[in-house]
Amino acid sequence: MKIIESTKNEWLKQVKKLEKKKFRDLENRYLIEGEHLVEEAINNEGDIQHILVTETSLVEFENLLATIDEEQLVLVTEDILKHLSHLPSVPSIMAIIGKGNQERKETKTNHLLLLDNVQDPGNVGTMIRTADAAGFAGVVLGEGSADIYNSKVLRSMQGSQFHLNLREANLLEIIETLKEEGYQIYATELNPEAIAYQQIETSEKIAFIMGNEGQGVSQELIEASHQAVYIPMMGKAESLNVAVAAGILMFSV
Amino acid sequence: MKIIESTKNEWLKQVKKLEKKKFRDLENRYLIEGEHLVEEAINNEGDIQHILVTETSLVEFENLLATIDEEQLVLVTEDILKHLSHLPSVPSIMAIIGKGNQERKETKTNHLLLLDNVQDPGNVGTMIRTADAAGFAGVVLGEGSADIYNSKVLRSMQGSQFHLNLREANLLEIIETLKEEGYQIYATELNPEAIAYQQIETSEKIAFIMGNEGQGVSQELIEASHQAVYIPMMGKAESLNVAVAAGILMFSV
Repeated sequence: MKIIESTKNEWLKQVKKLEKKKFRDLENRYLIEGEHLVEEAINNEGDIQHILVTETSLVEFENLLATIDEEQLVLVTEDILKHLSHLPSVPSIMAIIGKGNQERKETKTNHLLLLDNVQDPGNVGTMIRTADAAGFAGVVLGEGSADIYNSKVLRSMQGSQFHLNLREANLLEIIETLKEEGYQIYATELNPEAIAYQQIETSEKIAFIMGNEGQGVSQELIEASHQAVYIPMMGKAESLNVAVAAGILMFSV
Repeated sequence: MKIIESTKNEWLKQVKKLEKKKFRDLENRYLIEGEHLVEEAINNEGDIQHILVTETSLVEFENLLATIDEEQLVLVTEDILKHLSHLPSVPSIMAIIGKGNQERKETKTNHLLLLDNVQDPGNVGTMIRTADAAGFAGVVLGEGSADIYNSKVLRSMQGSQFHLNLREANLLEIIETLKEEGYQIYATELNPEAIAYQQIETSEKIAFIMGNEGQGVSQELIEASHQAVYIPMMGKAESLNVAVAAGILMFSV
């Protein structure tokens, strides 16, 4: 078991850098915080590279860590966890997870959610968590969307990255592929030709495209999709939060 | 038209204090930021006490401000707006709104949303916005819930406070009153006696109780309600974000 007592330790400096997307991409790994996420990683065969514990949490999480190889454990101080953490209350356990394991995860449906330039990390994380709850097969993040491994996305996502399939891709290309595979593609949009979501014919393969918080789905993606869809509103609000809208759509099919 | 050029101005110091709940409660007023919210306040007869503009925005928003009494306008500098703002990009218009106008607003349904100790301001604001979109009559905030006039709630709510009825109250007392008025009260809960939300019989008067992000609805409120209700999940996520869950429920009735 590696022991680190200073934030100036070279190995730790590398870990600290993972708060930047550039380094997460470069090293193909990311940091998760707290018991719940570490437990999800262990139970769902996440690619656990290291688990950071303190002397206290090593005892506290003895059962959880029973299957973990001692070489994977790193004993650190509470100050070090504080140094690494992005949470309001610093957790007593963290882990470094490889993005590597991209095997297709089994899910209850073939449905997909496509995110076009959704910028708020909380919205992105919440939509992935909701897609997971709705039994969706996966979420595809197009260019401009918040990074899956951003600390705020990880917090809102609550471990769903271990349950469903996530990937970053060019949405126009993905849509063409999905059409060939028999998917019905629905873009969310407020326009006169859009249909109400209750009119969607449930098919085995549905993909919804959610758009940017301000601008909505881009015109070229709307044109590439089969049908525009909207959520009829009875009140005076002009629009719904994108994560709430995605929840209503995903739980309707 | 009042002109203020320094953040040290005494009147402005009082305005700055409105970022604290204590002062909003004491003075029964709050600050809104940006064109969209000011427009909502004007169009929906909000109790506008003052509108803060700069020399530039006074011209920019000439049409919007056409109906505003000159005595209500306060000319300030961009630095002053920056001093008052809680937004990442400082808006060029703000307004001080009285909470006073508590007349019952007309809505499409009699349905209500009750929030039990929902702490995250983004969740509270998003749920009020969603209740508005679903045509709900109002939202009742129980003790422990984020303040309606907190800057983050205001941002997520997007002006819905001008469309539907909001009040703070003791939820146990409210539930007793609502029952007498013929409301069916549903508490969201994961327990074996809860029914799936699809089984809810739509009635004219429905109230949903949403609970704290971690603990859910308190036991005494569950017992006071007619029926516990849950959203069946197909995937592996353990729960939904409370605002997404509220959206799915509200748009189902």
